[in-house]
Amino acid sequence: MKLHAVGVVSKPKKEDVCAVAPQLLDWLQQRGIKPVPDQETTSCLGWKPGTPREEIPAQVDLIIVLGGDGTLLAIARHLGERPVPLLAVNLGSLGFLTEITLDEMYGALEDVLADRHRLDTRRMLEAEVARRGETIARYHALNDVVLHKAALARIVDFDVIIDRRFVSRIRADGLILSTPTGSTAYSLSAGGPIVLPSVAAMILTPIAPHMLTNRPLVIPDDSVVEVQAQSSAEAVYVTVDGQVGEELHSGDCVSTRKSGRVIRLVAAPRRDYFQVLRSKLRWGER
Amino acid sequence: MKLHAVGVVSKPKKEDVCAVAPQLLDWLQQRGIKPVPDQETTSCLGWKPGTPREEIPAQVDLIIVLGGDGTLLAIARHLGERPVPLLAVNLGSLGFLTEITLDEMYGALEDVLADRHRLDTRRMLEAEVARRGETIARYHALNDVVLHKAALARIVDFDVIIDRRFVSRIRADGLILSTPTGSTAYSLSAGGPIVLPSVAAMILTPIAPHMLTNRPLVIPDDSVVEVQAQSSAEAVYVTVDGQVGEELHSGDCVSTRKSGRVIRLVAAPRRDYFQVLRSKLRWGER
Amino acid sequence: MKLHAVGVVSKPKKEDVCAVAPQLLDWLQQRGIKPVPDQETTSCLGWKPGTPREEIPAQVDLIIVLGGDGTLLAIARHLGERPVPLLAVNLGSLGFLTEITLDEMYGALEDVLADRHRLDTRRMLEAEVARRGETIARYHALNDVVLHKAALARIVDFDVIIDRRFVSRIRADGLILSTPTGSTAYSLSAGGPIVLPSVAAMILTPIAPHMLTNRPLVIPDDSVVEVQAQSSAEAVYVTVDGQVGEELHSGDCVSTRKSGRVIRLVAAPRRDYFQVLRSKLRWGER
Amino acid sequence: MKLHAVGVVSKPKKEDVCAVAPQLLDWLQQRGIKPVPDQETTSCLGWKPGTPREEIPAQVDLIIVLGGDGTLLAIARHLGERPVPLLAVNLGSLGFLTEITLDEMYGALEDVLADRHRLDTRRMLEAEVARRGETIARYHALNDVVLHKAALARIVDFDVIIDRRFVSRIRADGLILSTPTGSTAYSLSAGGPIVLPSVAAMILTPIAPHMLTNRPLVIPDDSVVEVQAQSSAEAVYVTVDGQVGEELHSGDCVSTRKSGRVIRLVAAPRRDYFQVLRSKLRWGER
Repeated sequence: MKLHAVGVVSKPKKEDVCAVAPQLLDWLQQRGIKPVPDQETTSCLGWKPGTPREEIPAQVDLIIVLGGDGTLLAIARHLGERPVPLLAVNLGSLGFLTEITLDEMYGALEDVLADRHRLDTRRMLEAEVARRGETIARYHALNDVVLHKAALARIVDFDVIIDRRFVSRIRADGLILSTPTGSTAYSLSAGGPIVLPSVAAMILTPIAPHMLTNRPLVIPDDSVVEVQAQSSAEAVYVTVDGQVGEELHSGDCVSTRKSGRVIRLVAAPRRDYFQVLRSKLRWGER
Repeated sequence: MKLHAVGVVSKPKKEDVCAVAPQLLDWLQQRGIKPVPDQETTSCLGWKPGTPREEIPAQVDLIIVLGGDGTLLAIARHLGERPVPLLAVNLGSLGFLTEITLDEMYGALEDVLADRHRLDTRRMLEAEVARRGETIARYHALNDVVLHKAALARIVDFDVIIDRRFVSRIRADGLILSTPTGSTAYSLSAGGPIVLPSVAAMILTPIAPHMLTNRPLVIPDDSVVEVQAQSSAEAVYVTVDGQVGEELHSGDCVSTRKSGRVIRLVAAPRRDYFQVLRSKLRWGER
Repeated sequence: MKLHAVGVVSKPKKEDVCAVAPQLLDWLQQRGIKPVPDQETTSCLGWKPGTPREEIPAQVDLIIVLGGDGTLLAIARHLGERPVPLLAVNLGSLGFLTEITLDEMYGALEDVLADRHRLDTRRMLEAEVARRGETIARYHALNDVVLHKAALARIVDFDVIIDRRFVSRIRADGLILSTPTGSTAYSLSAGGPIVLPSVAAMILTPIAPHMLTNRPLVIPDDSVVEVQAQSSAEAVYVTVDGQVGEELHSGDCVSTRKSGRVIRLVAAPRRDYFQVLRSKLRWGER
Repeated sequence: MKLHAVGVVSKPKKEDVCAVAPQLLDWLQQRGIKPVPDQETTSCLGWKPGTPREEIPAQVDLIIVLGGDGTLLAIARHLGERPVPLLAVNLGSLGFLTEITLDEMYGALEDVLADRHRLDTRRMLEAEVARRGETIARYHALNDVVLHKAALARIVDFDVIIDRRFVSRIRADGLILSTPTGSTAYSLSAGGPIVLPSVAAMILTPIAPHMLTNRPLVIPDDSVVEVQAQSSAEAVYVTVDGQVGEELHSGDCVSTRKSGRVIRLVAAPRRDYFQVLRSKLRWGER
């Protein structure tokens, strides 16, 4: 893959970034590749101020993420329709998404330049918030769309409709609509299953449901899931990938479906999905 | 039991209350017992305004609750050190605490007058909120004390200390400290066990914990459980019995222990704890 | 759909069968359709002995099942490559698979004759048991393939391999490989998610896993899942749809993949999948 | 504590035992203490054959366990009414019960000799199997009493009665009756809570229950829990501490209550219960 310009996006206030970034930018420049660092990356360099994150995707052929899953989710929001490949390097412990270690970074970059790399495509969800029939917000989620009651709110009932068929009124703290990618994040904490990224599905996981029989639901990814929160006060929030969110009004409807967008991850050269699971979840080896 | 005055506390805006209350007040008066209704009870009567709930316990020998578990939790907060017996009548479906049906109400009252009744004592928890070394609030809980992050808050870590020994830093949406009585309420939804009321224990149940090995913990009820939320922003709330609550400041410490207070419930004449469980949880009969 | 012959397969020792079968056989004959009852069905009639179940599918255009999910699973095993439609009538309580009530039976049959019916196709799994490199058994499952340790056996480790990649060594009582159809059966009891029948997936659910992070796994249905039980003694059994099974030898490998076979269910005229879930799991209505 | 004779009980076929045992026996003899090794311990020594395990408790003041939790459970069965203290050394990874490491062994022994040690008392359960009104077997369990269906058995219903009151008919693979000590063993795998050893309770945990509302139950430890398995065939087994067991007949009743026996563990000098939990369950530190 011919690289003309490469974005570098970093975790904020991370000493490790300062230890890594200068050498990485040099490495790119030595190969005639223009580095496009964001402001977090340049903060510890003598460089001119970095490029705003949201402007990076349009300018580059590849984005290197230095951080953790949170940093990757943050830049994923700005990719838009153009799925610039992401090479995600974890600076702390291995992430579910940031599966390339610092040791492997330059090798992985060499692989990309030599077209020896593998790209792992991950689907996203699109959530639309409708208020009195009008769309007031639209989000794209790599991990999940979450509806959650406010901390002091009393009981909230969520009406769930899949493909125009009523499923149930679920009394719960909240509902998670997750991609397979997000199945190892918040949904797992709430009791959801692990769904391999190649399964064409989304997962609806209730958080602390009042009825013990309200269990996680795995739904075809060409379905549309509508959720309407029934609550007396304005006491329900929607959040996307744990990053952005807003308060819903009573009667608002959140429709979630497969997004037209995807992200493409440069796969770790010597690590498959199950190795990441084994490592993150501390499963046994043979 | 000789009854001089009996409080009557009702669920708000409940048509059933209006259908029941007049006859009940008559019934009491005919037996020379002074009824002390609250404002919810008198709202549908021609009576003078009712007595504020918090003043009722000091004036009566027994309180009749017309409503559901929520109404009972509300009056339990006002009992103070004097455990006036509660005769809790469910107006809707059977409650875990309001286990006397409307049909059984007069029979249960006759039993009380004839000393044929059984009192079921339920322990409570006391939670103390300390800010910079000073106690700023104190609560008594019949069901539970809950610490929960705000809906838009990111990750919150809860440091848990039991009897001055560090237990763990738990990353979760929240933590529930529950009595055995509360074990069938919110704690059950979050994955906690059912604890019989006669077990001298409290239950610490994490809500959607990040680590799957952070499981509910059953603790002796003579322990003190301290929880301190670690979060950058003021983004954690404490709520008691789902009724009252407030925002915590960073560094606040919530200590929970057995309360000196108890409540005493008039037991349903023909229904034991397991019958209530079977009915509420729709378990099988033989 | 033109019906020449219709099989009737019944739950054994069921009084309700005797109350229904004579009228049903008459109904078919009056319409010029040849009834082909099994031995359970004829047991309470003056008829000649019924047809062995395994011979019925080859002789008929439709099979009426009188019983519950167990009876349906039993006949499903004999369908072979020819997916004769099944009209499954529950004689007791509503089943996940037998969703037509007795009241609806004749209406559903009329619908079939008038081509107003809808067929619901359900995928099956195929499991192959290999011993020292040779296939010694092959099964087709509508619900699930289960590996389980013997009751007195000590610890068993299951090595799981998906598409020739090692997943993990799982220490557990057993492993369930389930279709979406089976996701509401044994897998649900063991903590698995509910997977809509239209999701192209299978579910691997561990039973009482030693590691709490060994959670249910949703796998694309074009994968091959190999499981090898590691145990000192011959102490592991494989069972299929809870109906047939056998003891495994040490070193045996069970490979499970999508079966070429399907079953086709006549859908209840006025009941969708979510209505069945709501009813069976006692979820709330709006 | 004056030690005249000390038993040494080892895990079978464990190379580590051979590396440790000779020095340990010497150490004891040098202090004028008579070592009483079992046959597993002497297997790698030039010693005369060891003492049968069941004879050791009557001859010694302390028993050193070299192995893991399984070895400790095995000797616990032979202690009888006389709770000889156990000093349990884990040779592999830290156990829930064998919390003293090899490095700490001699220090812990010095502490015992100097009366600087702490003894941790753990309660046991007693299970009685009655057949046609007669007691046919009696067991003492440190961890748990388990009733489990045979691998090929179909549905089993367990009728549970606590203190002569009917609780429920539970359809499940099995039921675990666990001590607080056993709450971190099999019961945890089946979804039970962690119960601190100081809570006076036992835990009833269903294994893969058919009804999702059949949740773990925490019961006062002065209760009697009777379980009767309802199954057509002789298809249910009882096992105790995963060590001994037998097949039940239809109609057999298993009654479990607090045992008169306890075990006493020499506590690790620098490790409390929560440290063991954190280590075994890989919880976070502060």
